[in-house]
Amino acid sequence: MNFDSIDNAVLDHRVKGIPGGVAPFRQGDIGRKGWNVLREDMTLPLAVLKDSAITHNSHWMRDFLMRSHSVISPHGKTSMAPQLFGRQIEDGAWAITVATPQQIQVARDFGFSRIVLANQLVGRQGVRYVLEELRRDSALDFYCLVDSEAGVAMLAAAARAANVGRPLQVLLEGGAPGGRTGVRDRETGMRIARAVKAAAPYLALRGVEGFEGLLAGASRAETEALVRGFLDLLVDLARDCEREDLYAPGEVILTAGGSAFYDMVLARFTRAGLQRPTRVVTRSGCYLSHDSSRYRRSFADIVDRTPEAAAGGGLVPALEVWAYVQSRPEPTKVLLTLGARDTATGDDKPVAQTWYRQGMAAPLPIGPGHVVTGMNDQHTHMAVPADSPLAFGDMVSFGVSHPCLTFDKWQVIVVVDDAYNVVSAIRTFF
Amino acid sequence: MNFDSIDNAVLDHRVKGIPGGVAPFRQGDIGRKGWNVLREDMTLPLAVLKDSAITHNSHWMRDFLMRSHSVISPHGKTSMAPQLFGRQIEDGAWAITVATPQQIQVARDFGFSRIVLANQLVGRQGVRYVLEELRRDSALDFYCLVDSEAGVAMLAAAARAANVGRPLQVLLEGGAPGGRTGVRDRETGMRIARAVKAAAPYLALRGVEGFEGLLAGASRAETEALVRGFLDLLVDLARDCEREDLYAPGEVILTAGGSAFYDMVLARFTRAGLQRPTRVVTRSGCYLSHDSSRYRRSFADIVDRTPEAAAGGGLVPALEVWAYVQSRPEPTKVLLTLGARDTATGDDKPVAQTWYRQGMAAPLPIGPGHVVTGMNDQHTHMAVPADSPLAFGDMVSFGVSHPCLTFDKWQVIVVVDDAYNVVSAIRTFF
Repeated sequence: MNFDSIDNAVLDHRVKGIPGGVAPFRQGDIGRKGWNVLREDMTLPLAVLKDSAITHNSHWMRDFLMRSHSVISPHGKTSMAPQLFGRQIEDGAWAITVATPQQIQVARDFGFSRIVLANQLVGRQGVRYVLEELRRDSALDFYCLVDSEAGVAMLAAAARAANVGRPLQVLLEGGAPGGRTGVRDRETGMRIARAVKAAAPYLALRGVEGFEGLLAGASRAETEALVRGFLDLLVDLARDCEREDLYAPGEVILTAGGSAFYDMVLARFTRAGLQRPTRVVTRSGCYLSHDSSRYRRSFADIVDRTPEAAAGGGLVPALEVWAYVQSRPEPTKVLLTLGARDTATGDDKPVAQTWYRQGMAAPLPIGPGHVVTGMNDQHTHMAVPADSPLAFGDMVSFGVSHPCLTFDKWQVIVVVDDAYNVVSAIRTFF
Repeated sequence: MNFDSIDNAVLDHRVKGIPGGVAPFRQGDIGRKGWNVLREDMTLPLAVLKDSAITHNSHWMRDFLMRSHSVISPHGKTSMAPQLFGRQIEDGAWAITVATPQQIQVARDFGFSRIVLANQLVGRQGVRYVLEELRRDSALDFYCLVDSEAGVAMLAAAARAANVGRPLQVLLEGGAPGGRTGVRDRETGMRIARAVKAAAPYLALRGVEGFEGLLAGASRAETEALVRGFLDLLVDLARDCEREDLYAPGEVILTAGGSAFYDMVLARFTRAGLQRPTRVVTRSGCYLSHDSSRYRRSFADIVDRTPEAAAGGGLVPALEVWAYVQSRPEPTKVLLTLGARDTATGDDKPVAQTWYRQGMAAPLPIGPGHVVTGMNDQHTHMAVPADSPLAFGDMVSFGVSHPCLTFDKWQVIVVVDDAYNVVSAIRTFF
């Protein structure tokens, strides 16, 4: 892992947050600027990551996984910030998960050597690049998904033609009816797994994968029942492949788990009952930043199901976006300088948390009744109580919901200490 | 206007679309690579701008405005692509509109000298930067909005303290009840306009502004009635200011108009009936790329209201995103390698247009019944007819809806000719 290219990258005022007219400077020097967010040393809107919260969450997940003897391959697509991938690996992550060829390329450029593409590998350039990397770097340990015989045939033909000297490792993907990718039934799964084995030594079946995060029932109990049923399908697929001896040599990988149900994944997969050594890999991308809405609720459910998750205080939100009050055109309405270009929106609107005005000792919690009602590209509409203190020029901090769709709105995110001093910055690659 | 810094910027495979392993190269050299999208020389998903369509749309708007003796200050926030701002200025745009201090900074860096901030100017750094630029460059012609006495007081104090030798030019913003920023009534508007005049010579009232694009009734007729009523308020505000002699010397600026109702804005503002010379400025950001859904419908309404808009064939969509079919797990469902990280989503899902498979002479129109039903961060769910030809590895092109929220998903967008040869690339600054 080498982040010199990020530290040496030039930041200038074309980047959101960097004050106008500042001479371009090395990103690695941002902590020496003496900037403080509350003092308005940077422009708003501004996304900030709280250093202490990131550290806390990273250690929480390390401890949680240790207790279950499993590992994590955090989904890098959440942040696409190699510096955060690095912290995750330092705290014991087994691999980095990504979703696209471009994301593989970013992870490779920064020296990550075990990569799970939690997706089909498709397209001339993506397939070519992965095979070239497998040839070039014997330390690369790469996995991708298959869910169709057509996909297996394409990968097999490409791997045969490239002849890189070792197999391309694949995981059989299970899916849910009406859901996303992945085989819907065991029979289809076996046809595909057999096709993988038939493509040896160019392909190697290394395990079974699924993503349960989109399953949604009418109630929490119904959703959890759907998740349990889906995990059962994945375990059945894994056992079927073992029974037919379709796996390549080595441990079998069982992997599932977004950021909402990883406790259930761990509980099910660690008692999958395979004969062969099994590596259980979860893939939450959002635990590191956590959030203030969607995954805050998911985490409450995790603690409810799995009380030991409350150890150490559980996860805390690390990502905030700050904006100014630009208008209060009606007594119960405030507009802020923040929009769909800056955070997730739709069902994942940001949540007002604190406010600050020059001269105050510290930000104050925002009172009840301050609710984001809508977002345009560059504006946020917020309903406020008639006696809200907010006025033109005040600063408001927002927690986010679904951090993936906030990270991707920022090329650079500053890291702050608990007093909002800027200590460093991460760069994203979307 | 100088785009050397873009042409000289290094592109590498960390950028979406650039094939893995390609040696880093100057962006300005991308047209010499000999890349063709259909030949899969680039990775997907890939956003492309059609050169011929951009040229057509830019000329269409120039001709349309010429007939109404008005000008455009296109909203740069749509693309945040200074190279496109340059084409717009070359085709007669009067100014570039932006929404935030960072967007001002980008426009200034590339040499744009007339800038309309269609927003309140708020925050220590943003105000400082604008005043410094007014001092530094006598050619800068800058406008921003005011809609509160508190905002006027802040700007007046800052301008007095900075004492840059000429006034900060402001436009009084009118708004709609329940809507976004802007005064809701004439009385409030006059209080604010008087405060601006009282702040001479530090502030100067130069006109009236509003944004009608969010007004929505239960029917098209009702929406148009709301727009007409809103434009009447803006004209009333403009006349009130004239009656009280609140404007600074020079022409009065009347500006409104997003991408849906600019014909109505032109019709109303060109007969505002002020005594003083009046400059009518519309601000559509989306006409240049146009789209395949939201603004396609808006444009049909424009042609219906204003038949001369059909001249020259009207606007055509210039922005497409290409993706692969990665899975067809059920006969009537296809998943594609495109997601909420790549285009607008929610009510603005992309629209499948053509498909292509290696060996075909050219892309074929996609048949009826291929409908995007949902998007995740990195996946698109599409319902397809059971007899759809789409299979693993096929390429599908999508038109977009609400181009603003597609442009901002791409740091680099390739420009292609009609045969999908890559001829150049634009860079965005979000």
